[in-house]
Amino acid sequence: MPDTPLIALDWGTTSLRAYRFDGGGQVAESRQLASGIMRVTTEDGAAGFERAFEQACDDWRRASPASPIIACGMIGSAQGWREAAYLDVPANLDDLGRALTEVETRSGAVLHIIPGLIHRGPLPDVMRGEETQVAGAIERADAWIGLPGTHSKWVRVQDRRIVAFHTFMTGEVFAALCAHTLLGRTMQRPAAPDLPAFDRGVAVARSPEARAGLLSTIFSTRTLGLVGALAAEAQADYLSGLLVGHELAALAHLAERLEPIVLVGSDELCLRYQRALAAFGHARAAIASGATERGLWRVACSAGLVPRSHTC
Amino acid sequence: MPDTPLIALDWGTTSLRAYRFDGGGQVAESRQLASGIMRVTTEDGAAGFERAFEQACDDWRRASPASPIIACGMIGSAQGWREAAYLDVPANLDDLGRALTEVETRSGAVLHIIPGLIHRGPLPDVMRGEETQVAGAIERADAWIGLPGTHSKWVRVQDRRIVAFHTFMTGEVFAALCAHTLLGRTMQRPAAPDLPAFDRGVAVARSPEARAGLLSTIFSTRTLGLVGALAAEAQADYLSGLLVGHELAALAHLAERLEPIVLVGSDELCLRYQRALAAFGHARAAIASGATERGLWRVACSAGLVPRSHTC
Repeated sequence: MPDTPLIALDWGTTSLRAYRFDGGGQVAESRQLASGIMRVTTEDGAAGFERAFEQACDDWRRASPASPIIACGMIGSAQGWREAAYLDVPANLDDLGRALTEVETRSGAVLHIIPGLIHRGPLPDVMRGEETQVAGAIERADAWIGLPGTHSKWVRVQDRRIVAFHTFMTGEVFAALCAHTLLGRTMQRPAAPDLPAFDRGVAVARSPEARAGLLSTIFSTRTLGLVGALAAEAQADYLSGLLVGHELAALAHLAERLEPIVLVGSDELCLRYQRALAAFGHARAAIASGATERGLWRVACSAGLVPRSHTC
Repeated sequence: MPDTPLIALDWGTTSLRAYRFDGGGQVAESRQLASGIMRVTTEDGAAGFERAFEQACDDWRRASPASPIIACGMIGSAQGWREAAYLDVPANLDDLGRALTEVETRSGAVLHIIPGLIHRGPLPDVMRGEETQVAGAIERADAWIGLPGTHSKWVRVQDRRIVAFHTFMTGEVFAALCAHTLLGRTMQRPAAPDLPAFDRGVAVARSPEARAGLLSTIFSTRTLGLVGALAAEAQADYLSGLLVGHELAALAHLAERLEPIVLVGSDELCLRYQRALAAFGHARAAIASGATERGLWRVACSAGLVPRSHTC
């Protein structure tokens, strides 16, 4: 029987990733299912979640029935299996570990759900899942951790605590503009990502022209095409650079000192943000890999789910 | 037989409005068809435009075969009946009148298409149709003319010339965000427009929180709902106010002095912009009605299409 000190789930909106850890705190096995919470049929109450849970890790549990199980992500939202109330920032690893929400499954297993975080204020901000990625990416006491994606998050870490964060809907706005506005109509998919076009968009967002604001600058995706100054195949990457550039320009207004920077996300997206950050004068943004798995492990350790005999 | 010195068409993307003028330069009759250029079947070349044209005004032409015909809007775009090349700004009424593009229809009529305008520069800007509305709205030598809509335009008029303009994709971005992002999922249609929610969005765009930029502030539509501070029925109007507020905040960076202001567009939209402008300290924005018809008449006069015996 394998030594499995932890089974962990990253259970988001569109997908479910499952990890089986070994005694050294490393991932021994992982799998990905399309059973995100929006894709799970829940007409019959929690039965859809039960089925997806069993599909994800029933064999692991049968082989190691005493293994604790932890989960992060939208599974803890109001639309998930059970709501895990947001924790206020500032919050650190121990705060997360102390605030797990338990769900007993029909097979008698207990799923421990990590809470999301809320930053209260005139415009509140929330995250769910990213707090665990940040927990896995923290290697120094102070940093800005950037999590580019559908909803990019920029997280300020001080003394190993998450003290503030900001959400930018960059990825989702990009997708909506490409698929559902005039801008998408003249775009053609390039054979490979057009990084010079991306850089050009970033440069516009850093230029005096950006005073006109995003609602205006994005129109140049169309007009530069009209005057023959931007090929159809370059328009999507140009728009991507424009939006990422507007995100970083705004971030510069929010952050007194945006360093050191650690990026967490898909390689392709992190490389884009590295390029854009370099254009903004931040040439040394690091990319953290495996942050989600490491974060799940760390929170489980902090919560005492993993015995102290293991590498925590 | 009626005295019809001019037949005029406002032929846009989604609709076609036709006007028959009387000898006093007033609209004697008008009609609206759903034959915008994107809705006209053009598989058979220009035949779709011919049919829509005949449907719009064939009876008027048979009653008054010598009436000149003028048109503005997307009918003069590359996707329209015939491309009417953009005219560079600065441009005035006489410049527009001198630059008409002629299309001879299969019935022998001549359609005179008013050119759009282009503002060249690092980020070029274009308009097509709005130049005619501006021509109809100019009552003083100097003004800022705002044309809220799918693509809002802000046009600077000096010495009765259009010297510069800026496009904001506010309306189209609003529609895409509501229909195709997370923000729309929790929105519920209010029984009546929620103007206090609109004002609240405008106020956020004017507040220090707006430093985070539009990609970030729009997320508050969701999070304010999450914390129970914004009802589902208020979320669309709040987002509308946010976007219009970001538009006006950017405009303030572009305009040294944004007065006097004249608004052209649907009543509902102009009243929203009036509210938002008042929040930005511009309490006296006027609303011009009938600008399109008056503009078509004025350009036709300037071009010499309407005999001098008529009120030009």
